[in-house]
Amino acid sequence: MYNEPMLRDDALSGKTIIVTGGGTGLGRAMSTYFLKLGANVVITSRKMDVLLKTAAEMEQEAAVSNKGGAKVLAVQCDVRKPEEVEEVLKQTLETFGQVNGLLNNAAGNFISPTERLSANAFSTIIDIVLKGTANCTMAVGKHWIKEKQAGTILNIVTTYAFTGSGYVVPSACAKGGVLAMTRSLAAEWGKYGIRNNAIAPGPFPTKGAWDRLLPGDMAKKFDFKNRVPLKRVGDHQELANLAAFMMSDFSGYINGEVITIDGGEWLQGAGQFNGLEAITPEMWDMLEMMTRSAKGS
Amino acid sequence: MYNEPMLRDDALSGKTIIVTGGGTGLGRAMSTYFLKLGANVVITSRKMDVLLKTAAEMEQEAAVSNKGGAKVLAVQCDVRKPEEVEEVLKQTLETFGQVNGLLNNAAGNFISPTERLSANAFSTIIDIVLKGTANCTMAVGKHWIKEKQAGTILNIVTTYAFTGSGYVVPSACAKGGVLAMTRSLAAEWGKYGIRNNAIAPGPFPTKGAWDRLLPGDMAKKFDFKNRVPLKRVGDHQELANLAAFMMSDFSGYINGEVITIDGGEWLQGAGQFNGLEAITPEMWDMLEMMTRSAKGS
Amino acid sequence: MYNEPMLRDDALSGKTIIVTGGGTGLGRAMSTYFLKLGANVVITSRKMDVLLKTAAEMEQEAAVSNKGGAKVLAVQCDVRKPEEVEEVLKQTLETFGQVNGLLNNAAGNFISPTERLSANAFSTIIDIVLKGTANCTMAVGKHWIKEKQAGTILNIVTTYAFTGSGYVVPSACAKGGVLAMTRSLAAEWGKYGIRNNAIAPGPFPTKGAWDRLLPGDMAKKFDFKNRVPLKRVGDHQELANLAAFMMSDFSGYINGEVITIDGGEWLQGAGQFNGLEAITPEMWDMLEMMTRSAKGS
Amino acid sequence: MYNEPMLRDDALSGKTIIVTGGGTGLGRAMSTYFLKLGANVVITSRKMDVLLKTAAEMEQEAAVSNKGGAKVLAVQCDVRKPEEVEEVLKQTLETFGQVNGLLNNAAGNFISPTERLSANAFSTIIDIVLKGTANCTMAVGKHWIKEKQAGTILNIVTTYAFTGSGYVVPSACAKGGVLAMTRSLAAEWGKYGIRNNAIAPGPFPTKGAWDRLLPGDMAKKFDFKNRVPLKRVGDHQELANLAAFMMSDFSGYINGEVITIDGGEWLQGAGQFNGLEAITPEMWDMLEMMTRSAKGS
Repeated sequence: MYNEPMLRDDALSGKTIIVTGGGTGLGRAMSTYFLKLGANVVITSRKMDVLLKTAAEMEQEAAVSNKGGAKVLAVQCDVRKPEEVEEVLKQTLETFGQVNGLLNNAAGNFISPTERLSANAFSTIIDIVLKGTANCTMAVGKHWIKEKQAGTILNIVTTYAFTGSGYVVPSACAKGGVLAMTRSLAAEWGKYGIRNNAIAPGPFPTKGAWDRLLPGDMAKKFDFKNRVPLKRVGDHQELANLAAFMMSDFSGYINGEVITIDGGEWLQGAGQFNGLEAITPEMWDMLEMMTRSAKGS
Repeated sequence: MYNEPMLRDDALSGKTIIVTGGGTGLGRAMSTYFLKLGANVVITSRKMDVLLKTAAEMEQEAAVSNKGGAKVLAVQCDVRKPEEVEEVLKQTLETFGQVNGLLNNAAGNFISPTERLSANAFSTIIDIVLKGTANCTMAVGKHWIKEKQAGTILNIVTTYAFTGSGYVVPSACAKGGVLAMTRSLAAEWGKYGIRNNAIAPGPFPTKGAWDRLLPGDMAKKFDFKNRVPLKRVGDHQELANLAAFMMSDFSGYINGEVITIDGGEWLQGAGQFNGLEAITPEMWDMLEMMTRSAKGS
Repeated sequence: MYNEPMLRDDALSGKTIIVTGGGTGLGRAMSTYFLKLGANVVITSRKMDVLLKTAAEMEQEAAVSNKGGAKVLAVQCDVRKPEEVEEVLKQTLETFGQVNGLLNNAAGNFISPTERLSANAFSTIIDIVLKGTANCTMAVGKHWIKEKQAGTILNIVTTYAFTGSGYVVPSACAKGGVLAMTRSLAAEWGKYGIRNNAIAPGPFPTKGAWDRLLPGDMAKKFDFKNRVPLKRVGDHQELANLAAFMMSDFSGYINGEVITIDGGEWLQGAGQFNGLEAITPEMWDMLEMMTRSAKGS
Repeated sequence: MYNEPMLRDDALSGKTIIVTGGGTGLGRAMSTYFLKLGANVVITSRKMDVLLKTAAEMEQEAAVSNKGGAKVLAVQCDVRKPEEVEEVLKQTLETFGQVNGLLNNAAGNFISPTERLSANAFSTIIDIVLKGTANCTMAVGKHWIKEKQAGTILNIVTTYAFTGSGYVVPSACAKGGVLAMTRSLAAEWGKYGIRNNAIAPGPFPTKGAWDRLLPGDMAKKFDFKNRVPLKRVGDHQELANLAAFMMSDFSGYINGEVITIDGGEWLQGAGQFNGLEAITPEMWDMLEMMTRSAKGS
């Protein structure tokens, strides 16, 4: 059941939501569910051809439940460029008359030992993930503040935004920055009715992304399932359910929060004695006997 | 809209959920929504007369949406006593044949300078909140593990479970312990399909509770709204929506997480410069001019 | 050099410090260094014979650097019993005229799957670790507040106080409670000049303790060194150096802090991609080539 | 005593440490203490005239305790420019033959409502604080890895790196990124003997910095002391003591840690009931009586 839609059908009815990086992978899954729940969705990415194809497919996929006829608008945008971000806002307002939500989902990553990265590579990830998120947040936020309108910002981060992680350090730094942005603006912009929250997804594999990160049979070797107490990866609809809740007015009292949805992955690794899972029941029996006899002696 | 039910109508259909402290306040609000979503609910507290009255009222309140005829069972229980907790489990199984969820909501608190508390007062809160939660969690968890059945545990904590707080120190310690329990068992029991999560609610006033804590006009003086970026307290249905989501299979990939729902209250206080909210736009204009002329000189 | 004393010789001169569980293991190592730095030390445990032997040995070990002739007092005490804790305070004041610091170090632990523990076993650990710490903190804190005297409290917790951990759940809950106490009283008692801090040590093996937890060759199998980025366990003097700093006036502006000293152990496990350490330089070379040629195509 | 040097005199003897932004304020205070403890110090900033004057003054100030004749080298550097950072490393190696530590202290900040900032202003702070720290860390880290040499990196962040804060949002984002970098590289580079840690200072006023941020009598109005449980701001030597400890081998088992030194400031604001400090003892007496009589009735 966890892979089915969870919210009542009108949960996002009448809203318009911008989703950066909305044309593929998890961004597309979240956008599609927003559409099904009645929201107009503006999807952006650098590749206009992919976007246009996706937009058409999304409208078709959502057709049954999308009774109000919500639409998808595709706008080409490199989030690093403030003027292109402004253009997204402009086209959104021209097409739908308003904007109610922003999902900062566009990202980039290099998997590499840090000492093999150039200053330039590092810089590129910071620009896309952190400055890109700032550009979109400031453009939409300034618009809402000027129009005295409420709004909701949702940022996709990662668990290593707070734990850190080797081998993805530029991304960790950028996502750590986005996490601080989320908490900062939750406090500062709450008075305008603007909420800021984040989701930290664990392993939700998307064919494209993961293949690009770890080509060859490396991906099989480094299987995330084994790191997760629940022994499975996440389903895209699970993330979409959470994102739709966070974007809807039903989460209206959640502000400044980062919600981790990783099956317990980071905790499994963090907790000092969790490795004792390797001990079998028979061994525990034996250990208990030994402990008891030691005490008895 | 945030005070309306959010989940599709069958979200908890066929489940049986035990709610400690379910007869009053927030526990009752959450229990009632579980019932509306189709779950049988077992409510417990030390006061049987209150419980029985509540059970009848809840069934009536939920009657319209509760098409499957889910029921409420009231069982007297002091969560400090393992044998009374076992009795709750026994009656639950006898009445409903199974149990699928546990909401550890029973609590106690003293508001007082710590140096005015006796060792005994301190001990009482630890026993109710921390040991009580452990008693319920172990009873239900052992049952699930023995029966090879999945299940969901949800603990109600507070934001001061992680930030700490003066003047409610026994409660802070006990809730801090429950938070560690949540994260620990998320990792350890995930392999059995048992999820452990928590909610940290900010200000959700309930007439009884708050009056008991701060009698007289003290409560007015110490108004929580001013500590919250969103400038309002929470609505009971908002907490019920979140709790129902966390108890349902729709949150099946969230494990070991504590979700804060406080409007941004703790962040507002924590962030070093948030007090600058007191500066008016006119003053900011002036500051900007001064800064500029200083740079120009 | 990390295993040498670090502070200037008079860092704790003239102070009197109570160390619960001070007769063995890490408690003894910290107590001995306090003594070397000129502090009178009161060590407590349930076993008076061990304490008396230790006290004599400590005074001898510290003799060279302890020019002021600081003394060790041994007092039998079960920290679960408020009246025995009061007796420690009484004897401390009678012997040394004052008390300046409290190191809550006494602890207990069971390593076991949680479903194998009785409610009683769980309760015992909570009583020793959480209530015991509360008893000592309240006794000494009330004394300082009454006498209008400043003081320093230092609590030994663990990294799983905040991350949680399976297989040591009662200890995790109790230590999580102590962490909340630390932060709570830092805020509440700061106005009295009473600081509250904590140290979360990672793997600092002590023969006794570890053998008791994992008997047989299990301990070898589950080698902590492999979980630590620095590839070594901690040296007792390293913990003693940190504890002496935290107990001294030199840390006078650190309040409410928990300092982790674990070589990075918990972060290593927590960070999502840290497992890529298993990839060799040669494999990274190959991955880079594949990525480049993929981009080139 | 907290404003006196704490470490034994040779704690940093024979080391060479680079301190970015080392010419003024807290950077200078830390650098001077490193020098007193026997380390050669390389201070950098964009203003060469200030640096040269400072270097001379520092050597004079440290002359008495600096028996080994450690030196100060001033190098002009804009940390945003990788080639200038490389030049610092080159001159350091030419002058002192090695480098053992890096203190990333250079920073920038705007105090302003976020909606008043341009994308460009935001970007500037990210470049100085986050990319600047990355540039220095990567240059020095790559050098150590190539030379198979151990080393220590210490980053100065803020408490709002993890809590976030309004009105300093670009800085919060950048410092949040540095925090993630600290934890990431602690895990990844630990195997090379490179430690990464951070310090989060609370209010340590420096005349220049604070005046620039809040000109006029605004600074008086917004007095940090009131936000701190200990009711005082920090002394520069207190930060210098902590920084020297973290830079020395004595902290050799602390890795990936951020140590907060703020007197409890962030906790005071974060804890939900800490505002009850406003209640006087007489009012508590009254409240206790009311509670008791309510229970008695």
